[in-house]
Amino acid sequence: MSGLMITFEGGDGSGKSTQIALLATRLRSLGHDVRTFREPGGVAPGDPGERIREILLDPVHTELGVRAELLLYEAARAQLVAAHYLPGLAEGAIVLCDRYADSSVAYQGYGRAVLPVEEVHELNRIATGGLTPDLTLLLDVDPAHGLAQATAEGADRLEQAGAAFHERVRAGYLLMAEAEPERVKVVPRGPVDAVAAAVWSHVEPLLGRMERE
Amino acid sequence: MSGLMITFEGGDGSGKSTQIALLATRLRSLGHDVRTFREPGGVAPGDPGERIREILLDPVHTELGVRAELLLYEAARAQLVAAHYLPGLAEGAIVLCDRYADSSVAYQGYGRAVLPVEEVHELNRIATGGLTPDLTLLLDVDPAHGLAQATAEGADRLEQAGAAFHERVRAGYLLMAEAEPERVKVVPRGPVDAVAAAVWSHVEPLLGRMERE
Repeated sequence: MSGLMITFEGGDGSGKSTQIALLATRLRSLGHDVRTFREPGGVAPGDPGERIREILLDPVHTELGVRAELLLYEAARAQLVAAHYLPGLAEGAIVLCDRYADSSVAYQGYGRAVLPVEEVHELNRIATGGLTPDLTLLLDVDPAHGLAQATAEGADRLEQAGAAFHERVRAGYLLMAEAEPERVKVVPRGPVDAVAAAVWSHVEPLLGRMERE
Repeated sequence: MSGLMITFEGGDGSGKSTQIALLATRLRSLGHDVRTFREPGGVAPGDPGERIREILLDPVHTELGVRAELLLYEAARAQLVAAHYLPGLAEGAIVLCDRYADSSVAYQGYGRAVLPVEEVHELNRIATGGLTPDLTLLLDVDPAHGLAQATAEGADRLEQAGAAFHERVRAGYLLMAEAEPERVKVVPRGPVDAVAAAVWSHVEPLLGRMERE
Protein backbone atom coordinates (compact mmCIF):
# COMPACT_ATOMS: atom_id res chain seq x y z
CA MET A 1 0.00 0.00 0.00
CA SER A 2 1.32 3.39 -0.94
CA GLY A 3 0.05 6.81 0.09
CA LEU A 4 0.08 10.20 -1.52
CA MET A 5 2.30 13.20 -0.84
CA ILE A 6 0.90 16.64 -1.59
CA THR A 7 2.88 19.79 -0.84
CA PHE A 8 1.66 23.37 -0.67
CA GLU A 9 3.96 26.17 -1.73
CA GLY A 10 3.69 29.92 -2.06
CA GLY A 11 4.60 33.18 -0.43
CA ASP A 12 3.70 34.15 3.10
CA GLY A 13 0.03 35.05 3.40
CA SER A 14 -0.93 33.00 0.34
CA GLY A 15 -3.44 30.97 2.36
CA LYS A 16 -1.59 27.65 2.52
CA SER A 17 -2.62 26.75 6.05
CA THR A 18 -6.29 27.54 5.38
CA GLN A 19 -6.29 25.42 2.22
CA ILE A 20 -4.50 22.55 3.92
CA ALA A 21 -7.07 22.53 6.72
CA LEU A 22 -9.95 22.50 4.20
CA LEU A 23 -8.38 19.76 2.11
CA ALA A 24 -7.57 17.64 5.17
CA THR A 25 -11.18 17.86 6.34
CA ARG A 26 -12.52 16.90 2.93
CA LEU A 27 -10.13 13.96 2.56
CA ARG A 28 -10.84 12.70 6.07
CA SER A 29 -14.58 12.83 5.38
CA LEU A 30 -13.86 10.38 2.54
CA GLY A 31 -12.16 8.05 4.99
CA HIS A 32 -8.51 8.80 4.20
CA ASP A 33 -5.73 8.74 6.78
CA VAL A 34 -4.49 12.33 6.46
CA ARG A 35 -1.34 13.62 8.16
CA THR A 36 -0.41 17.30 8.04
CA PHE A 37 3.00 18.90 8.57
CA ARG A 38 4.55 22.31 8.20
CA GLU A 39 8.18 23.16 7.46
CA PRO A 40 10.48 24.01 8.99
CA GLY A 41 9.58 22.10 12.10
CA GLY A 42 8.75 18.84 13.77
CA VAL A 43 5.63 17.40 15.29
CA ALA A 44 5.98 18.11 19.01
CA PRO A 45 7.53 20.87 21.15
CA GLY A 46 11.15 20.12 21.97
CA ASP A 47 11.76 17.64 19.16
CA PRO A 48 14.75 18.34 16.89
CA GLY A 49 12.68 19.88 14.09
CA GLU A 50 10.92 22.31 16.41
CA ARG A 51 14.23 23.35 17.95
CA ILE A 52 15.63 23.98 14.47
CA ARG A 53 12.53 26.01 13.64
CA GLU A 54 13.12 28.20 16.69
CA ILE A 55 16.67 28.97 15.54
CA LEU A 56 15.52 29.78 12.00
CA LEU A 57 12.60 32.03 12.87
CA ASP A 58 14.25 33.88 15.74
CA PRO A 59 14.27 37.57 14.69
CA VAL A 60 17.43 38.06 16.77
CA HIS A 61 19.51 35.80 14.54
CA THR A 62 19.94 38.15 11.64
CA GLU A 63 23.60 37.11 11.67
CA LEU A 64 22.73 33.60 10.43
CA GLY A 65 24.65 33.04 7.16
CA VAL A 66 22.87 31.94 4.01
CA ARG A 67 24.57 28.52 3.89
CA ALA A 68 23.84 27.81 7.55
CA GLU A 69 20.24 28.89 7.09
CA LEU A 70 19.77 26.60 4.11
CA LEU A 71 21.39 23.64 5.88
CA LEU A 72 19.13 24.12 8.90
CA TYR A 73 16.03 24.01 6.70
CA GLU A 74 17.39 20.87 5.07
CA ALA A 75 18.14 19.26 8.43
CA ALA A 76 14.59 19.80 9.65
CA ARG A 77 13.30 18.46 6.33
CA ALA A 78 15.53 15.38 6.45
CA GLN A 79 14.18 14.54 9.88
CA LEU A 80 10.53 14.89 8.78
CA VAL A 81 11.16 12.73 5.70
CA ALA A 82 12.76 9.93 7.72
CA ALA A 83 10.53 10.04 10.78
CA HIS A 84 7.14 10.96 9.30
CA TYR A 85 6.75 11.33 5.53
CA LEU A 86 8.19 7.98 4.48
CA PRO A 87 6.50 5.99 7.27
CA GLY A 88 3.18 7.75 6.55
CA LEU A 89 3.40 7.01 2.84
CA ALA A 90 4.32 3.40 3.54
CA GLU A 91 1.17 3.10 5.67
CA GLY A 92 -1.01 4.45 2.85
CA ALA A 93 -1.61 7.87 4.38
CA ILE A 94 -2.09 11.14 2.52
CA VAL A 95 0.74 13.40 3.65
CA LEU A 96 0.01 17.14 3.34
CA CYS A 97 2.97 19.48 3.74
CA ASP A 98 2.93 23.21 4.30
CA ARG A 99 6.20 23.82 2.38
CA TYR A 100 8.79 21.30 1.23
CA ALA A 101 11.91 21.22 -0.94
CA ASP A 102 10.64 23.80 -3.45
CA SER A 103 10.57 26.38 -0.63
CA SER A 104 14.33 26.12 -0.23
CA VAL A 105 14.85 26.59 -3.97
CA ALA A 106 12.50 29.57 -4.00
CA TYR A 107 13.67 31.29 -0.80
CA GLN A 108 17.31 30.31 -0.24
CA GLY A 109 18.04 29.87 -3.95
CA TYR A 110 16.12 32.45 -6.00
CA GLY A 111 15.23 34.75 -3.08
CA ARG A 112 18.59 35.10 -1.34
CA ALA A 113 20.30 34.99 -4.75
CA VAL A 114 23.67 34.09 -3.20
CA LEU A 115 23.98 30.33 -3.68
CA PRO A 116 23.58 28.67 -7.08
CA VAL A 117 20.06 27.26 -7.45
CA GLU A 118 21.63 23.97 -8.55
CA GLU A 119 23.32 23.68 -5.16
CA VAL A 120 19.97 23.98 -3.42
CA HIS A 121 18.53 21.26 -5.64
CA GLU A 122 21.49 19.06 -4.77
CA LEU A 123 20.99 19.65 -1.05
CA ASN A 124 17.29 18.84 -1.39
CA ARG A 125 18.20 15.58 -3.07
CA ILE A 126 20.58 14.63 -0.27
CA ALA A 127 18.25 15.74 2.54
CA THR A 128 15.16 13.99 1.18
CA GLY A 129 16.87 10.98 -0.35
CA GLY A 130 15.04 11.96 -3.53
CA LEU A 131 11.49 11.85 -2.15
CA THR A 132 9.37 13.90 -4.62
CA PRO A 133 5.74 14.93 -4.00
CA ASP A 134 2.98 13.41 -6.13
CA LEU A 135 1.49 16.89 -6.42
CA THR A 136 2.61 20.39 -5.50
CA LEU A 137 0.06 23.18 -5.28
CA LEU A 138 1.61 26.60 -5.76
CA LEU A 139 -0.72 29.20 -4.27
CA ASP A 140 0.41 32.16 -6.29
CA VAL A 141 -0.23 35.64 -4.92
CA ASP A 142 1.25 39.06 -5.55
CA PRO A 143 3.89 39.45 -2.79
CA ALA A 144 2.56 42.91 -1.89
CA HIS A 145 -0.80 41.36 -1.03
CA GLY A 146 0.61 38.27 0.69
CA LEU A 147 3.01 40.27 2.85
CA ALA A 148 0.30 42.62 4.06
CA GLN A 149 -1.57 39.51 5.22
CA ALA A 150 1.48 37.97 6.87
CA THR A 151 2.84 41.04 8.65
CA ALA A 152 -0.56 41.71 10.15
CA GLU A 153 0.30 38.59 12.21
CA GLY A 154 3.80 39.85 13.15
CA ALA A 155 6.87 39.77 10.94
CA ASP A 156 9.60 37.19 11.46
CA ARG A 157 13.13 37.38 10.15
CA LEU A 158 12.36 36.16 6.64
CA GLU A 159 9.42 38.47 6.22
CA GLN A 160 11.61 41.45 6.99
CA ALA A 161 13.75 40.70 3.96
CA GLY A 162 12.05 43.15 1.67
CA ALA A 163 9.88 43.39 -1.38
CA ALA A 164 12.56 42.63 -3.99
CA PHE A 165 13.36 39.38 -2.18
CA HIS A 166 9.73 38.30 -2.27
CA GLU A 167 9.44 39.19 -5.95
CA ARG A 168 12.41 36.90 -6.67
CA VAL A 169 10.82 34.13 -4.60
CA ARG A 170 7.61 34.35 -6.61
CA ALA A 171 9.48 34.37 -9.91
CA GLY A 172 11.46 31.32 -8.77
CA TYR A 173 8.30 29.44 -7.90
CA LEU A 174 6.79 30.20 -11.30
CA LEU A 175 9.96 28.99 -13.02
CA MET A 176 9.72 25.71 -11.11
CA ALA A 177 6.08 25.30 -12.10
CA GLU A 178 7.05 25.86 -15.71
CA ALA A 179 9.87 23.33 -15.46
CA GLU A 180 7.70 20.60 -13.89
CA PRO A 181 4.13 21.18 -15.10
CA GLU A 182 3.02 17.63 -14.32
CA ARG A 183 3.90 17.92 -10.62
CA VAL A 184 3.51 21.64 -9.86
CA LYS A 185 0.08 23.20 -10.38
CA VAL A 186 -0.32 26.97 -10.09
CA VAL A 187 -3.45 28.03 -8.21
CA PRO A 188 -4.18 31.75 -8.69
CA ARG A 189 -5.39 33.99 -5.90
CA GLY A 190 -9.13 34.13 -5.30
CA PRO A 191 -11.85 33.71 -2.66
CA VAL A 192 -11.15 30.84 -0.25
CA ASP A 193 -13.87 28.62 -1.74
CA ALA A 194 -12.68 29.19 -5.30
CA VAL A 195 -9.10 28.33 -4.35
CA ALA A 196 -10.32 25.23 -2.49
CA ALA A 197 -12.23 24.15 -5.60
CA ALA A 198 -9.13 24.62 -7.75
CA VAL A 199 -7.06 22.63 -5.25
CA TRP A 200 -9.63 19.85 -5.28
CA SER A 201 -9.64 19.72 -9.08
CA HIS A 202 -5.95 18.77 -8.91
CA VAL A 203 -6.22 16.40 -5.95
CA GLU A 204 -9.27 14.36 -6.99
CA PRO A 205 -7.67 12.62 -10.00
CA LEU A 206 -4.86 11.37 -7.75
CA LEU A 207 -7.35 9.69 -5.41
CA GLY A 208 -8.68 7.63 -8.29
CA ARG A 209 -5.11 6.63 -9.08
CA MET A 210 -4.52 5.66 -5.41
CA GLU A 211 -7.55 3.37 -5.43
CA ARG A 212 -6.48 1.60 -8.59
CA GLU A 213 -3.09 0.73 -7.14
CA MET B 1 47.49 39.39 4.68
CA SER B 2 46.42 35.81 4.95
CA GLY B 3 46.27 33.60 8.05
CA LEU B 4 46.59 29.90 8.63
CA MET B 5 43.91 27.29 9.26
CA ILE B 6 44.89 24.21 11.24
CA THR B 7 42.35 21.54 12.13
CA PHE B 8 42.65 18.75 14.69
CA GLU B 9 40.92 15.45 14.05
CA GLY B 10 40.72 12.12 15.79
CA GLY B 11 38.49 9.97 17.93
CA ASP B 12 37.06 10.99 21.28
CA GLY B 13 39.70 10.98 23.98
CA SER B 14 42.56 11.42 21.51
CA GLY B 15 43.75 14.58 23.28
CA LYS B 16 42.73 17.19 20.71
CA SER B 17 41.70 19.86 23.21
CA THR B 18 44.91 19.47 25.24
CA GLN B 19 47.06 19.75 22.12
CA ILE B 20 45.12 22.74 20.82
CA ALA B 21 45.62 24.55 24.13
CA LEU B 22 49.36 23.82 24.10
CA LEU B 23 49.73 24.89 20.48
CA ALA B 24 47.70 28.06 21.01
CA THR B 25 49.90 29.04 23.95
CA ARG B 26 53.08 28.43 22.00
CA LEU B 27 51.85 30.36 18.96
CA ARG B 28 50.65 33.27 21.08
CA SER B 29 54.02 33.45 22.81
CA LEU B 30 55.47 34.06 19.34
CA GLY B 31 53.08 36.96 18.86
CA HIS B 32 50.48 35.33 16.62
CA ASP B 33 46.78 36.17 16.71
CA VAL B 34 45.37 32.72 17.53
CA ARG B 35 41.65 31.92 17.50
CA THR B 36 40.35 28.54 18.68
CA PHE B 37 37.05 26.87 17.87
CA ARG B 38 35.43 23.50 18.39
CA GLU B 39 32.79 21.82 16.26
CA PRO B 40 29.92 21.44 16.36
CA GLY B 41 29.19 24.75 18.02
CA GLY B 42 29.47 28.49 18.02
CA VAL B 43 31.36 30.99 20.11
CA ALA B 44 28.83 32.14 22.71
CA PRO B 45 25.93 30.56 24.58
CA GLY B 46 22.66 31.00 22.71
CA ASP B 47 24.16 31.65 19.30
CA PRO B 48 22.93 29.44 16.44
CA GLY B 49 25.93 27.09 16.49
CA GLU B 50 25.63 26.44 20.22
CA ARG B 51 21.91 25.75 19.88
CA ILE B 52 22.66 23.29 17.07
CA ARG B 53 25.29 21.64 19.28
CA GLU B 54 22.72 21.16 22.03
CA ILE B 55 20.39 19.34 19.62
CA LEU B 56 23.19 17.12 18.33
CA LEU B 57 24.68 16.11 21.66
CA ASP B 58 21.40 15.63 23.53
CA PRO B 59 21.39 11.95 24.60
CA VAL B 60 17.57 12.03 24.44
CA HIS B 61 17.52 12.51 20.68
CA THR B 62 18.45 9.01 19.66
CA GLU B 63 15.66 9.32 17.07
CA LEU B 64 17.65 11.87 15.06
CA GLY B 65 18.05 10.45 11.53
CA VAL B 66 21.45 10.15 9.89
CA ARG B 67 20.73 12.74 7.19
CA ALA B 68 19.34 15.26 9.69
CA GLU B 69 22.34 14.70 11.95
CA LEU B 70 24.79 15.30 9.13
CA LEU B 71 22.97 18.42 7.95
CA LEU B 72 23.00 19.86 11.46
CA TYR B 73 26.77 19.39 11.71
CA GLU B 74 27.12 21.07 8.33
CA ALA B 75 24.87 23.97 9.34
CA ALA B 76 26.94 24.70 12.44
CA ARG B 77 30.10 24.44 10.32
CA ALA B 78 28.77 26.76 7.61
CA GLN B 79 28.03 29.37 10.25
CA LEU B 80 31.53 29.14 11.76
CA VAL B 81 33.14 29.40 8.33
CA ALA B 82 31.17 32.51 7.38
CA ALA B 83 31.20 34.28 10.72
CA HIS B 84 34.63 33.33 12.13
CA TYR B 85 37.03 31.24 10.04
CA LEU B 86 37.01 33.37 6.88
CA PRO B 87 37.11 36.72 8.72
CA GLY B 88 39.90 35.42 10.99
CA LEU B 89 41.97 34.20 8.06
CA ALA B 90 41.43 37.49 6.23
CA GLU B 91 42.80 39.30 9.29
CA GLY B 92 45.93 37.13 9.32
CA ALA B 93 44.98 35.05 12.35
CA ILE B 94 45.87 31.42 12.99
CA VAL B 95 42.58 29.57 13.23
CA LEU B 96 42.72 26.34 15.26
CA CYS B 97 39.72 24.03 14.95
CA ASP B 98 38.82 21.11 17.17
CA ARG B 99 37.16 19.09 14.34
CA TYR B 100 36.17 20.28 10.89
CA ALA B 101 34.90 18.78 7.64
CA ASP B 102 36.92 15.55 7.96
CA SER B 103 34.94 14.71 11.11
CA SER B 104 31.73 14.50 9.10
CA VAL B 105 33.35 12.21 6.57
CA ALA B 106 34.77 10.02 9.33
CA TYR B 107 31.72 9.89 11.62
CA GLN B 108 28.63 10.40 9.45
CA GLY B 109 30.23 8.85 6.36
CA TYR B 110 32.51 5.97 7.33
CA GLY B 111 31.18 5.57 10.89
CA ARG B 112 27.43 5.53 10.31
CA ALA B 113 28.01 3.68 7.02
CA VAL B 114 24.57 4.66 5.70
CA LEU B 115 25.21 7.62 3.39
CA PRO B 116 27.74 7.45 0.55
CA VAL B 117 31.02 9.06 1.61
CA GLU B 118 30.91 11.08 -1.62
CA GLU B 119 27.68 12.70 -0.46
CA VAL B 120 29.36 13.84 2.75
CA HIS B 121 32.23 15.34 0.76
CA GLU B 122 29.70 17.16 -1.43
CA LEU B 123 27.90 18.54 1.63
CA ASN B 124 31.21 19.69 3.11
CA ARG B 125 31.97 21.50 -0.11
CA ILE B 126 28.61 23.30 -0.06
CA ALA B 127 28.71 24.10 3.67
CA THR B 128 32.26 25.44 3.67
CA GLY B 129 32.26 27.00 0.22
CA GLY B 130 35.38 24.91 -0.37
CA LEU B 131 37.49 26.27 2.53
CA THR B 132 40.25 23.69 3.07
CA PRO B 133 42.66 23.71 6.05
CA ASP B 134 46.35 24.43 5.47
CA LEU B 135 47.13 21.56 7.83
CA THR B 136 45.13 18.80 9.49
CA LEU B 137 46.60 16.95 12.46
CA LEU B 138 45.07 13.53 12.91
CA LEU B 139 45.63 12.41 16.49
CA ASP B 140 45.40 8.69 15.95
CA VAL B 141 44.54 6.47 18.92
CA ASP B 142 43.15 3.01 19.32
CA PRO B 143 39.39 3.55 19.84
CA ALA B 144 39.38 1.27 22.88
CA HIS B 145 41.84 3.56 24.62
CA GLY B 146 40.24 6.80 23.46
CA LEU B 147 36.76 5.75 24.48
CA ALA B 148 37.87 4.80 27.96
CA GLN B 149 39.22 8.34 28.29
CA ALA B 150 36.08 9.94 26.91
CA THR B 151 33.48 7.96 28.82
CA ALA B 152 35.25 8.73 32.05
CA GLU B 153 33.91 12.24 31.39
CA GLY B 154 30.35 11.05 30.64
CA ALA B 155 29.14 9.47 27.42
CA ASP B 156 27.07 11.48 24.95
CA ARG B 157 24.92 10.07 22.16
CA LEU B 158 27.75 9.54 19.69
CA GLU B 159 29.96 7.84 22.21
CA GLN B 160 27.27 5.29 22.91
CA ALA B 161 27.41 4.11 19.31
CA GLY B 162 29.66 1.17 19.95
CA ALA B 163 33.10 -0.15 19.25
CA ALA B 164 32.55 -1.22 15.63
CA PHE B 165 31.43 2.31 14.79
CA HIS B 166 34.57 3.81 16.28
CA GLU B 167 36.75 1.32 14.43
CA ARG B 168 35.15 2.44 11.15
CA VAL B 169 35.72 6.09 12.10
CA ARG B 170 39.41 5.45 12.69
CA ALA B 171 39.77 3.53 9.44
CA GLY B 172 38.04 6.37 7.59
CA TYR B 173 40.40 8.93 9.06
CA LEU B 174 43.43 6.88 8.04
CA LEU B 175 42.07 6.55 4.50
CA MET B 176 41.71 10.33 4.31
CA ALA B 177 45.27 10.81 5.52
CA GLU B 178 46.44 8.41 2.85
CA ALA B 179 44.47 10.25 0.17
CA GLU B 180 45.78 13.71 1.14
CA PRO B 181 49.24 13.21 2.65
CA GLU B 182 50.26 16.84 2.07
CA ARG B 183 47.42 18.22 4.16
CA VAL B 184 46.69 15.46 6.69
CA LYS B 185 49.48 14.45 9.07
CA VAL B 186 49.02 11.42 11.31
CA VAL B 187 50.27 11.95 14.86
CA PRO B 188 50.52 8.65 16.76
CA ARG B 189 49.53 8.27 20.39
CA GLY B 190 52.15 9.08 22.99
CA PRO B 191 52.92 11.18 26.08
CA VAL B 192 51.47 14.70 25.89
CA ASP B 193 54.88 16.32 25.37
CA ALA B 194 55.86 13.91 22.61
CA VAL B 195 52.57 14.51 20.78
CA ALA B 196 53.01 18.27 21.20
CA ALA B 197 56.49 18.01 19.71
CA ALA B 198 55.15 16.03 16.74
CA VAL B 199 52.39 18.62 16.27
CA TRP B 200 54.95 21.41 16.36
CA SER B 201 57.13 19.69 13.77
CA HIS B 202 54.23 19.96 11.32
CA VAL B 203 53.17 23.50 12.29
CA GLU B 204 56.54 25.24 12.35
CA PRO B 205 57.26 25.01 8.60
CA LEU B 206 53.93 26.70 7.89
CA LEU B 207 54.87 29.68 10.05
CA GLY B 208 57.92 30.28 7.90
CA ARG B 209 55.67 30.17 4.85
CA MET B 210 53.29 32.71 6.46
CA GLU B 211 56.12 35.14 7.07
CA ARG B 212 57.41 34.93 3.54
CA GLU B 213 53.99 35.85 2.11
